[in-house]
Amino acid sequence: MSNTIEIFGIRDLPEIQSGDDLGVLICEAASQQGTTLVDSDVIVITQKIVSKAEGRIIDLSNITPSPLAVQIASEHERDPRHTEVVLQESKRIVRMKRGVIIAETKHGFICANAGVDASNASGEGTVCLLPLHPDTSADRIKTFIRNTLGIQVAIVISDTFGRPWREGAINVAIGVAGINPLADYRGEQDSHGLELRTTAIAIADELASAGELVMGKLDRVPVAVIRGYAYPDGKDGINSLIRPTEKDLFQ
Amino acid sequence: MSNTIEIFGIRDLPEIQSGDDLGVLICEAASQQGTTLVDSDVIVITQKIVSKAEGRIIDLSNITPSPLAVQIASEHERDPRHTEVVLQESKRIVRMKRGVIIAETKHGFICANAGVDASNASGEGTVCLLPLHPDTSADRIKTFIRNTLGIQVAIVISDTFGRPWREGAINVAIGVAGINPLADYRGEQDSHGLELRTTAIAIADELASAGELVMGKLDRVPVAVIRGYAYPDGKDGINSLIRPTEKDLFQ
Repeated sequence: MSNTIEIFGIRDLPEIQSGDDLGVLICEAASQQGTTLVDSDVIVITQKIVSKAEGRIIDLSNITPSPLAVQIASEHERDPRHTEVVLQESKRIVRMKRGVIIAETKHGFICANAGVDASNASGEGTVCLLPLHPDTSADRIKTFIRNTLGIQVAIVISDTFGRPWREGAINVAIGVAGINPLADYRGEQDSHGLELRTTAIAIADELASAGELVMGKLDRVPVAVIRGYAYPDGKDGINSLIRPTEKDLFQ
Repeated sequence: MSNTIEIFGIRDLPEIQSGDDLGVLICEAASQQGTTLVDSDVIVITQKIVSKAEGRIIDLSNITPSPLAVQIASEHERDPRHTEVVLQESKRIVRMKRGVIIAETKHGFICANAGVDASNASGEGTVCLLPLHPDTSADRIKTFIRNTLGIQVAIVISDTFGRPWREGAINVAIGVAGINPLADYRGEQDSHGLELRTTAIAIADELASAGELVMGKLDRVPVAVIRGYAYPDGKDGINSLIRPTEKDLFQ
């Protein structure tokens, strides 16, 4: 019989403020809803609360848009200050269509508006940026949980990305700790000599997507626990999910 | 408390042969491992067993490669007959690099080698094609389960696709029945006037990825059951996940 994986949400976290310790708040909220985190849990955390805890909220009234931002925004009735923040968060512009900028972020992720989210609940006139170093953010939470509860968990920080060719966004991983985000079985054989999958699987992305299933329509379930999945631990960071352009057959 | 979602595999299906009725075999295997399928289960089925049941296995000894296939294959030490099948399964060539063809299939999916899989266990010298009409395949299984067990389930037929910019493949949906593959909450508000997500979510893809977590390294767990996920039912097929090129900001 296959093992059963369970996925459930951690709800009722308070509204996250800059400086909050997410490790503390997640453990408290879990405890409050009668859940005990256990060894080998995968904890999927939405980027937005990580960004908020790290103060990655920008008040647009402090932003002076560059001429390029003004130009781009004016053609599409967008806020030039928002466009300016997107340009500042970008390492490279990949596409630019109808006022939406598909950018490579400084981390190497390709996503709409360089991950700058205007639809967050932090208040009118603000935008939310991606965490500066999502692996570090993940590791800090992992370490807190190890020190507090004495257990080893994996952390996946997730964000909702669009992609080419397919409608609908999906959750993917933008930061990890305690888990190898890529399961690469190429060339391996099992004990019976049976052929293994010929493709490396981005398990951190699949876990992020699985976590989204309990996060639901609203952002009120910002944390999901995935229990019973035997993941390969490791020290590889999210960079192992970023494909170098020269290796990319899909570009 | 959030609902808990459970994911478990259905194992020990026999080696699938052309003409097999997957609905029968899935129900038998579930019963054999002591599982009862229930109303609203999502059943994720790997494309490969659907293709095998539908006889979508090609013996390469019957294939005469075209001059183009010979040309492409010769430069990369590939089997020109395999390349020929890829070309025949393609509606459009999207990229061609190092002997790998990224193609639009006749269904409208963009994937490596038009979904033609040479690494299947059907025997040396054969390749496995995608099902001709995956929604129809899914609906047939759904209908069998409804008629046999008296329950309504959702079916997601999954395949493992690579994608641009990120390492590692992930499972996505290539056919659905009984579920709306796209959850579109744009513009909605909840009962408290709280803002809903601004993005439509490709839940069928996320379910396919979640199912992969129990399918594991080998293809010996070809079916996953996802229980406890309140999906939007509907008659929309997989086409609603195919983005028209003119709407695609990522291309």
